[in-house]
Amino acid sequence: MSDVKKVVLAYSGGLDTSVIVKWLQETYNCEVVTFTADIGQGEEVEPARTKAQALGVKEIYIEDLREEFVRDYVYPMFRANTVYEGEYLLGTSIARPLIAKRLIEIANETGADAISHGATGKGNDQVRFELGGYALKPGVKVIAPWREWDLTSREKLMAYCEEHNIPVDFANKKKKSPYSMDANLLHISYEGGILEDPWAEAEDDMWRWSVSPEAAPDQATYVELTFDKGDIVAIDGEPLKAHEVLEKLNKMGGDNGIGRLDIVENRYVGMKSRGCYETPGGTIMLRAHRAIESLTLDREEAHLKDQLMPKYAEVIYNGYWWSPERRMLQAAIDETQKNVAGVVRMKLYKGNAIVVGRKSDESLFDESIATFEDDAGAYNQKDAEGFIKLNALRLRIAAGKGRKQS
Amino acid sequence: MSDVKKVVLAYSGGLDTSVIVKWLQETYNCEVVTFTADIGQGEEVEPARTKAQALGVKEIYIEDLREEFVRDYVYPMFRANTVYEGEYLLGTSIARPLIAKRLIEIANETGADAISHGATGKGNDQVRFELGGYALKPGVKVIAPWREWDLTSREKLMAYCEEHNIPVDFANKKKKSPYSMDANLLHISYEGGILEDPWAEAEDDMWRWSVSPEAAPDQATYVELTFDKGDIVAIDGEPLKAHEVLEKLNKMGGDNGIGRLDIVENRYVGMKSRGCYETPGGTIMLRAHRAIESLTLDREEAHLKDQLMPKYAEVIYNGYWWSPERRMLQAAIDETQKNVAGVVRMKLYKGNAIVVGRKSDESLFDESIATFEDDAGAYNQKDAEGFIKLNALRLRIAAGKGRKQS
Amino acid sequence: MSDVKKVVLAYSGGLDTSVIVKWLQETYNCEVVTFTADIGQGEEVEPARTKAQALGVKEIYIEDLREEFVRDYVYPMFRANTVYEGEYLLGTSIARPLIAKRLIEIANETGADAISHGATGKGNDQVRFELGGYALKPGVKVIAPWREWDLTSREKLMAYCEEHNIPVDFANKKKKSPYSMDANLLHISYEGGILEDPWAEAEDDMWRWSVSPEAAPDQATYVELTFDKGDIVAIDGEPLKAHEVLEKLNKMGGDNGIGRLDIVENRYVGMKSRGCYETPGGTIMLRAHRAIESLTLDREEAHLKDQLMPKYAEVIYNGYWWSPERRMLQAAIDETQKNVAGVVRMKLYKGNAIVVGRKSDESLFDESIATFEDDAGAYNQKDAEGFIKLNALRLRIAAGKGRKQS
Amino acid sequence: MSDVKKVVLAYSGGLDTSVIVKWLQETYNCEVVTFTADIGQGEEVEPARTKAQALGVKEIYIEDLREEFVRDYVYPMFRANTVYEGEYLLGTSIARPLIAKRLIEIANETGADAISHGATGKGNDQVRFELGGYALKPGVKVIAPWREWDLTSREKLMAYCEEHNIPVDFANKKKKSPYSMDANLLHISYEGGILEDPWAEAEDDMWRWSVSPEAAPDQATYVELTFDKGDIVAIDGEPLKAHEVLEKLNKMGGDNGIGRLDIVENRYVGMKSRGCYETPGGTIMLRAHRAIESLTLDREEAHLKDQLMPKYAEVIYNGYWWSPERRMLQAAIDETQKNVAGVVRMKLYKGNAIVVGRKSDESLFDESIATFEDDAGAYNQKDAEGFIKLNALRLRIAAGKGRKQS
Repeated sequence: MSDVKKVVLAYSGGLDTSVIVKWLQETYNCEVVTFTADIGQGEEVEPARTKAQALGVKEIYIEDLREEFVRDYVYPMFRANTVYEGEYLLGTSIARPLIAKRLIEIANETGADAISHGATGKGNDQVRFELGGYALKPGVKVIAPWREWDLTSREKLMAYCEEHNIPVDFANKKKKSPYSMDANLLHISYEGGILEDPWAEAEDDMWRWSVSPEAAPDQATYVELTFDKGDIVAIDGEPLKAHEVLEKLNKMGGDNGIGRLDIVENRYVGMKSRGCYETPGGTIMLRAHRAIESLTLDREEAHLKDQLMPKYAEVIYNGYWWSPERRMLQAAIDETQKNVAGVVRMKLYKGNAIVVGRKSDESLFDESIATFEDDAGAYNQKDAEGFIKLNALRLRIAAGKGRKQS
Repeated sequence: MSDVKKVVLAYSGGLDTSVIVKWLQETYNCEVVTFTADIGQGEEVEPARTKAQALGVKEIYIEDLREEFVRDYVYPMFRANTVYEGEYLLGTSIARPLIAKRLIEIANETGADAISHGATGKGNDQVRFELGGYALKPGVKVIAPWREWDLTSREKLMAYCEEHNIPVDFANKKKKSPYSMDANLLHISYEGGILEDPWAEAEDDMWRWSVSPEAAPDQATYVELTFDKGDIVAIDGEPLKAHEVLEKLNKMGGDNGIGRLDIVENRYVGMKSRGCYETPGGTIMLRAHRAIESLTLDREEAHLKDQLMPKYAEVIYNGYWWSPERRMLQAAIDETQKNVAGVVRMKLYKGNAIVVGRKSDESLFDESIATFEDDAGAYNQKDAEGFIKLNALRLRIAAGKGRKQS
Repeated sequence: MSDVKKVVLAYSGGLDTSVIVKWLQETYNCEVVTFTADIGQGEEVEPARTKAQALGVKEIYIEDLREEFVRDYVYPMFRANTVYEGEYLLGTSIARPLIAKRLIEIANETGADAISHGATGKGNDQVRFELGGYALKPGVKVIAPWREWDLTSREKLMAYCEEHNIPVDFANKKKKSPYSMDANLLHISYEGGILEDPWAEAEDDMWRWSVSPEAAPDQATYVELTFDKGDIVAIDGEPLKAHEVLEKLNKMGGDNGIGRLDIVENRYVGMKSRGCYETPGGTIMLRAHRAIESLTLDREEAHLKDQLMPKYAEVIYNGYWWSPERRMLQAAIDETQKNVAGVVRMKLYKGNAIVVGRKSDESLFDESIATFEDDAGAYNQKDAEGFIKLNALRLRIAAGKGRKQS
Repeated sequence: MSDVKKVVLAYSGGLDTSVIVKWLQETYNCEVVTFTADIGQGEEVEPARTKAQALGVKEIYIEDLREEFVRDYVYPMFRANTVYEGEYLLGTSIARPLIAKRLIEIANETGADAISHGATGKGNDQVRFELGGYALKPGVKVIAPWREWDLTSREKLMAYCEEHNIPVDFANKKKKSPYSMDANLLHISYEGGILEDPWAEAEDDMWRWSVSPEAAPDQATYVELTFDKGDIVAIDGEPLKAHEVLEKLNKMGGDNGIGRLDIVENRYVGMKSRGCYETPGGTIMLRAHRAIESLTLDREEAHLKDQLMPKYAEVIYNGYWWSPERRMLQAAIDETQKNVAGVVRMKLYKGNAIVVGRKSDESLFDESIATFEDDAGAYNQKDAEGFIKLNALRLRIAAGKGRKQS
């Protein structure tokens, strides 16, 4: 093919990426370095070592990136109340920049000239991996086997395994899910299978991280979330690291049937696709973050954040985390979070994450002004007349000159 | 005071606006025309006639505006998926432009030179009424008694009633709610009382339109909503008028504990306030509308809508319905809704309004392309390489020239 | 290659596209239909007929599209005051959608299954032609010879001509310009040659449509432009068709050294390029349009237009004229132009296009309010106090609570 | 009136603010502190001392703020290429926040409880002074004499002077200009007089800072401007302080007839007004800044800046410099300026400020890729096919499903 000498592969330890190891060795006649990360997907990563060794891999990277993932990627994203197309919390999108960054760093460490991944040619993930790779190491060669090979069916993959002595237990260990799934500390996603019909309701046994609202407890759970600089730093008064926060909220949310989502979304490559997501902790975080901002943000910065958010979400969804425009937006967002601190009290109940109270030393809520009772002159109602009169002036002039207003 | 001859008052028939009738007559020595509208607030409007007559009013307007309200105000607003500050469905805001328009039309019909309303000098509603009034009749005189008089406490109001023989049954008919409330077909709102402490949880007996999620049925309700040009035109296959749709969805939502909201919001006059809202039907509509758009809107128009929405919400919240900027935004929004048609299937269960399916003759979802199975060449995965390479080009050039990317 | 039967080629009659005719016939063994349009590039189009015939073309389309070009593309774009990256008036970009549309219409008329163009693989024009083609005829085959063939140098092209008996007078007729140029009624552009060094000043003899400011007359020229619905409909009181307006303004602007531009721009394919442009009429139109809008547009719609404009410019520059997002933006823009009517008086002098006066029956300028003299109560200065007080309220509350403001 | 003890007045030394000194002393029976600043208005500030003393003022502040003004206000604003309503360079707007800040600082130093200014109740400046004042000292009392007193004509003012022994030479020193003017290092502005008719051309003898293009030299002047972090740090290789840069560019621009502007603008208080401006140095800076950005900014950050700019301009024009939203926008803007460095070469000639070259060590212009010549494989033209195909996918799907595209 080309003159690749060494390639770093994002290796899950599963069947597909194991085939890719072998296929890279054969096709490119190159050395393969595997990189396996724990980003909270809920599966052991250590077994990937033995599997990689069995495939003849000499340089094996296995890492726990959970804290870095939540602290440096999930948290900054949530500061913007980021939602793609009104619904999607970007659980898959936000994990890719970290993987891309580590692939490149490992390539630099091991002297590799290429990186590779197991994402298909139809999806967003190839874009996210590769944009990150090119942005961080412009001369890197990217190998995307799914865009190159002819192993386009399950049968061909299995035949390839047999032919190349790739241990069969990979495939048989558990019944293959009918869904294409992806998981990390922020969410688990499901695509394909019956979901390809947008009218078909998802089967109840598809969902893995949450009980159904119906199966959730009949008693509500209350929780208090403490924020500092826009990030959750404690739950019910207990200080926690970023990834511990998300793990705990995932448990609480999942137990209460919170965070299921079923949508049709627009991929960057130009097609619509249907996906189901479970984001229990993220769903709670988003609501809580908006609540603490409602007390502590100025109106105009809050509105400006809301106007920028869809663009910021698009940037992340499309794979441009490592870009000047993301840094520019992040600078604006982070500037607003300096005083986003305080406590939000939430009620979790059968699918609902309900804000029931919020308080903050940085609160801009002024009870003495807002009150319906006597405000002792804190607010002069007569000011409103001039306020309205001048805000109406352009409309009055236009109407006075006969301009139609309705 | 000034030389007002006749004033049209937005008259609810309640204590406050009854006092205003008398106060206007006395203070301005002018004739008062009352205008009372049924916009779905859930109270009879006809009794307002007798009350107005008792106060000596000769021109009394009582109107059923429910269909006009939903068709010409609520529906256009929902086409934009409008949400203020990430949470609020603008239930109060959207009713004001219609009231303002009718006040002005009645002023024109009756030869009145002024309009009046019962909104206080601290809130948004005075702004909405008056901006609308000025935009539609630039020379109109606006009288806002709460900004002028000294009846600043309940006691003074009651004393005024006694002094002026305003029938006492107004006040005694039912125990005065501790909350300031507003209702129409889209929502009911609560402010004041213990809600003035943002940390205090709303009392369960405050809510009037919905049962609590806990009290909702243990069996989910499924419903199919049919859209045409972005609006719901049928429920479970039955064609309905706009206001019938909202009435029915309010019932279904309220029965299933859907649509309660508890927020701190930023008022246009510059203060934060805490409000609780019940918007059962609107909550269902918003989700369903996003779902039908997810199938039928192009990606880029959908994203542009999302970027414009916060501005559009601000325009409505701040009272600028009757403005060139609202018409401009509406033109853009309505242009996108021509093909927003189809059916959304929803599951309503204990506070949750869940989309479980969507279908449309106008669907842009292409199963033959999106499939994880063999697509028979509908999509060429090799195209993705060039797509990514050129999208990465600016990032690669920058990195190649040593520009820092992280 | 593939099974193309008939292809419609955007044919200029020049050397490159003449080679393409032959190359298509040979490579695809298909019939070629030529399409040559007068969009004001300033060269005769009729000679293209003989040349095409000489190349064996049977179906030859030669059309005068000047009026359609200005009326349906240039004018709508100028309603938005469209400028790309602060400087570029999009002269090339705006001509492509019309060419794409005619290519597809001719393909439909002649039963062709493919279209072809002479744009290279590095530029924006390939994108604009092809996005338009795909949007209007999704199954069309696009042939872009410059991305396929190996005639990558002038020498190879000349050799190909000789080998295939392509009349040599094509090449020799005039000394080949060192620049890559494109022209239509809106502008002429120059790229390549010494311009590839952004530090190098363009040579004075490069410019073709305008005299230098130094060479322009020492006497200023005054002109009055009449607008209706945002478009210029008369010059100095003489009603003119759209393309006549632009022709006349090009003459007046060019004579006065107006409309030269020298910039570095960001191409959609990811690279920066340096281009020089002459847009004499467009430069005058832009200034005049802003001037008539300054009298007739409401402030908020004007500001919203300014916020949307960069996106609208990007949509056109990137080739998405035929897209839902462009139509959505156009709907918003056109909604604002209903009352953009009146006369702008301009002074043209040695490179300067200066607005010196503007008047309109639709003017929203209110002299009785704006005056520095006694306004007889038209404006109540005391209103300003309340206006400022409430606009400051959020800032005062924040500062009062110790929030840092500087 | 109220219980003001000491007030800090923005004092120019002219007639109007001298009257204000006396009027404040009389009306409020309070002590007056005067503050006079040199911000480059081109008049001596020291004479204000004697005048203030003559009026009985004990605490007199006279300061040279030219460097602070340009470095901390003008330069940050120009980093955003800020233009209000497509034309206005915000010369008046940007000086107000600095004055407001010093008024408050002096109030804090002198124990004053109020500030005062000489701006009228119709304009933007009152808003800018007062918003700044309230944001920086929320409890401050603001006295705006023009909104309070009855000295509403020149005659009344003169009578007041006579009555109160305000030295007459104030008024007689020079013939009163028919225009309301404001000047600082960035610009000089003219309003009122015959300018109140938007159709009337400004008289040639009105302009003070620039010669007319006609009167400018027949030889062009070339100048090289060196940028660092988005700011000009040297002219023709000579390092200069910020205010020296602007002084020098004002001279060069004014000598060459550059920077005159005649517009109708929308004031924040709701009316349109006509203003003429001379901004010689700013006009050159804006063009030069865009030129250096064209080489050194990434495309997407550049486009995002362009989209945010109108909002940023509005924030400054409306007087919200000291606000969270301005800081948020500034954070985004400044993030992009880290690599905006290099040299721009400009030609100044009879009203034209023309960019003729730009170079930078931080350039992202890649000649090896952009070239029309053989690029030795730096760019693979075949990538463009996939790029276009996938960008067209959503359009092709829509068209394939019969969705109308034109």
